[in-house]
Amino acid sequence: MNINFNDTIAAISTPKGSGGIAIIRISGGAAIDIAAQFCQCNIPLPRAKSWRVYLGKFYFSGEKLAEQQQSTYDQVLITIFRAPNSYTKEDIVEISCHGGEYIAESILRSLIQGGARLAMPGEFTLRAFINGRIDLVQAEAVADLIKSQNDLALQNSNRQLEGFLSTMIENFRNRLVETISLLEVELDFAEEDLEFTSRDKILELLNEIIQSIQKLIGSFSREKLVRQGVKVVLAGKPNVGKSSVLNAMLSENRAIVTDIPGTTRDVLEETVNIHGINFRLFDTAGIIESRDPVEIEGIRRTKMNIQDADILVMIFDGSQNLTAEDEAIFQLIRQFRDSKKIVIVINKSDLPNAIDKIDFKEFDSTIDLLKISALNSSGLEDLSTLLVSYLDDLKSQVTDEFILTNIRHKNALEKGLASIQHAKNSIVNKLSGEFVVSDLKIAFDYLGELTGVITSEEILNNIFSNFCIGK
Amino acid sequence: MNINFNDTIAAISTPKGSGGIAIIRISGGAAIDIAAQFCQCNIPLPRAKSWRVYLGKFYFSGEKLAEQQQSTYDQVLITIFRAPNSYTKEDIVEISCHGGEYIAESILRSLIQGGARLAMPGEFTLRAFINGRIDLVQAEAVADLIKSQNDLALQNSNRQLEGFLSTMIENFRNRLVETISLLEVELDFAEEDLEFTSRDKILELLNEIIQSIQKLIGSFSREKLVRQGVKVVLAGKPNVGKSSVLNAMLSENRAIVTDIPGTTRDVLEETVNIHGINFRLFDTAGIIESRDPVEIEGIRRTKMNIQDADILVMIFDGSQNLTAEDEAIFQLIRQFRDSKKIVIVINKSDLPNAIDKIDFKEFDSTIDLLKISALNSSGLEDLSTLLVSYLDDLKSQVTDEFILTNIRHKNALEKGLASIQHAKNSIVNKLSGEFVVSDLKIAFDYLGELTGVITSEEILNNIFSNFCIGK
Repeated sequence: MNINFNDTIAAISTPKGSGGIAIIRISGGAAIDIAAQFCQCNIPLPRAKSWRVYLGKFYFSGEKLAEQQQSTYDQVLITIFRAPNSYTKEDIVEISCHGGEYIAESILRSLIQGGARLAMPGEFTLRAFINGRIDLVQAEAVADLIKSQNDLALQNSNRQLEGFLSTMIENFRNRLVETISLLEVELDFAEEDLEFTSRDKILELLNEIIQSIQKLIGSFSREKLVRQGVKVVLAGKPNVGKSSVLNAMLSENRAIVTDIPGTTRDVLEETVNIHGINFRLFDTAGIIESRDPVEIEGIRRTKMNIQDADILVMIFDGSQNLTAEDEAIFQLIRQFRDSKKIVIVINKSDLPNAIDKIDFKEFDSTIDLLKISALNSSGLEDLSTLLVSYLDDLKSQVTDEFILTNIRHKNALEKGLASIQHAKNSIVNKLSGEFVVSDLKIAFDYLGELTGVITSEEILNNIFSNFCIGK
Repeated sequence: MNINFNDTIAAISTPKGSGGIAIIRISGGAAIDIAAQFCQCNIPLPRAKSWRVYLGKFYFSGEKLAEQQQSTYDQVLITIFRAPNSYTKEDIVEISCHGGEYIAESILRSLIQGGARLAMPGEFTLRAFINGRIDLVQAEAVADLIKSQNDLALQNSNRQLEGFLSTMIENFRNRLVETISLLEVELDFAEEDLEFTSRDKILELLNEIIQSIQKLIGSFSREKLVRQGVKVVLAGKPNVGKSSVLNAMLSENRAIVTDIPGTTRDVLEETVNIHGINFRLFDTAGIIESRDPVEIEGIRRTKMNIQDADILVMIFDGSQNLTAEDEAIFQLIRQFRDSKKIVIVINKSDLPNAIDKIDFKEFDSTIDLLKISALNSSGLEDLSTLLVSYLDDLKSQVTDEFILTNIRHKNALEKGLASIQHAKNSIVNKLSGEFVVSDLKIAFDYLGELTGVITSEEILNNIFSNFCIGK
């Protein structure tokens, strides 16, 4: 990385492109003096008060500023956040200019000519970490916050930013220190036979830590639900109206959310946000017996999607008698009835009924069944209500506790856990206390790497290269 | 348009996409109260001071806020600008949040649920106009500012924003009012034979106005130079090294500007910014006699680009004798020597010379000639220096005065001018003063439409639909 933290850094902090406002941020000991070279306010910038907004002009510097008849400027708002009451704990100047790319880049170029250095990705947050305002998992939470696509992800990242995970890790580390102290006391007084009392106490402590870490690692299995939302797969044999149901659900639910655009779409996947969580709706290829390699591949993907789903919407054509092809769907329902939320949807209720609830009586009272007409949009409200009720069940799994969403954290916890378990085995097998202490110190260090008490350039580099410039 | 200006409006004012910071802006009578429903600061928002920044949390509202176990928030900076000391002269709240799209959109959605209306494109600036903070040409200058691609465009837009054009127009209107008064005096006292004295005075006044308006309309011919920069076309027969020269010039000049990315490129056009103005470098198809329709089309385009160029760089291969094909280039030089800046470049100076300055002696002392080697990058610095010296000539044409860059302004001025000239002819032809007054009042109104003293929904709609949302 080789970063010099004595430099004053600058970057455009707003997204790239053209808009109403852009913000250029400067942080470091010389931030105010560098900005002052270019800014004209009703008060000299070094005398400006912290956390106040000043109207002024920012004069661009060119290579030949003095030679030009007329220098160029933009009218800007300038805010100073003096150290340590700023994001980085350093002096920060924020310049809010007209949101044209040329303007923002000209201001940035001027600041760099004036002595600032272009910030590395995430360097403002890195400085907040280096200067002790936040620890490493809190810094990572900032990047997660910005990437959040739904309320759950945002809540989880906010809890991490506020120190929820940090406190847990510190708690583990404190308990490890306590255990190590007990062991060291035992080592000092080995002859006096204190061993037996303290061994039980130590095992109890270690088991507590092991359980807590295991629970935390276990939460990682739900990280996809948090980050990406609920996966709903629509399946059925061909021509039962899967795409019509998808489209009808979309228009039903688009009415619930406001129509601000932004969600990425592709041919197979559509996302709607209901009550702050994303439903990712997957339309799939019809499930049939086939020898056509294209169809076989389509069905293979359908089955992979079904495996991966949180909710299955199994669709039947209510106007046709059940056929051998529907049997494949019945089998899928049987296969997943215990592991997934499933709803049976009998579509085409606008046509005369050929099948009815009675045909599904083997699933009575365990699986919800709905008659709908995608054509008339009838029954769709019931389907939405049902999905939301499933959602509430799924949400309760994730809102009650913190969910680990970062693979680095999971890996560090697993390594720490392995060392603790090794230490525990050594105690059970009555090995020397010195081995136990050594393992626990290794675990203590792994957990320290997590929060950044112990860190390396490589770790910092990996983490902050994922940030955007300007954060 | 049908806009209700009593509404409180909200929009994301930063560019779309993901970044470090996003800003949501609210303007209108209820701005502070609407934001206060969601914001938690150390002071209730309605009591917050104007032009100060407060740290707080913005709690999102969902459809079922009360039912949710936990509501979602983002940590934000909140700034209030109280009326009339704000961009719109209304109460404005600016919320600076983490720059994730989901976060910014959730905040906007909350504010809309809380009673704000999504702002129309440019509606903040439209309100600044409606509330009398700026006139219409100043409002248009804001959009031009954001679109500026070079210092000249920015300077010109800033002059317009600061009222340079508005003052000129008001000056024309004042002089028209003066003329109309003189005419009306004449009409009242027609019998008393005051006619002859005042007629000269009136003609003098009208000629002054006509000249000023003509000069302003004439400046429009340079709007392309202001908005797009200097067009430099590289031409020559095939294989003289046009693309190598282009690439060598790019790398030479990329060193002059800082390496902040952002300029749009395509195969044929490259832009470098030198001393605050853009050089648009065009590589062209080699000029040859050909019957191949693809080549003929290429040559046709080359000639169109040459027609449109500000500077022509005519390239020859110094290692080969001149051929019949080079004669086509000689002809182009003769054709444009009086209307464009031209430099003759003898490339491949790294190879033994086959042609020399003597071969170009018909252009002696009128056209610059340089020997370069694109391969060795020798002579490129001289070429850059030469281009910059041409630039200084071109710049002096545009920096001394205001350049009209808006076709609406040009059209309105032309209509006003036609009415004034009609009035002048009526005086010369000794028609009744009433006709003259009628024509001058029409001109007065055309100029009033320009600054927005007189306006219509259609004009406002045309202007503000070109703005981005959030400005």
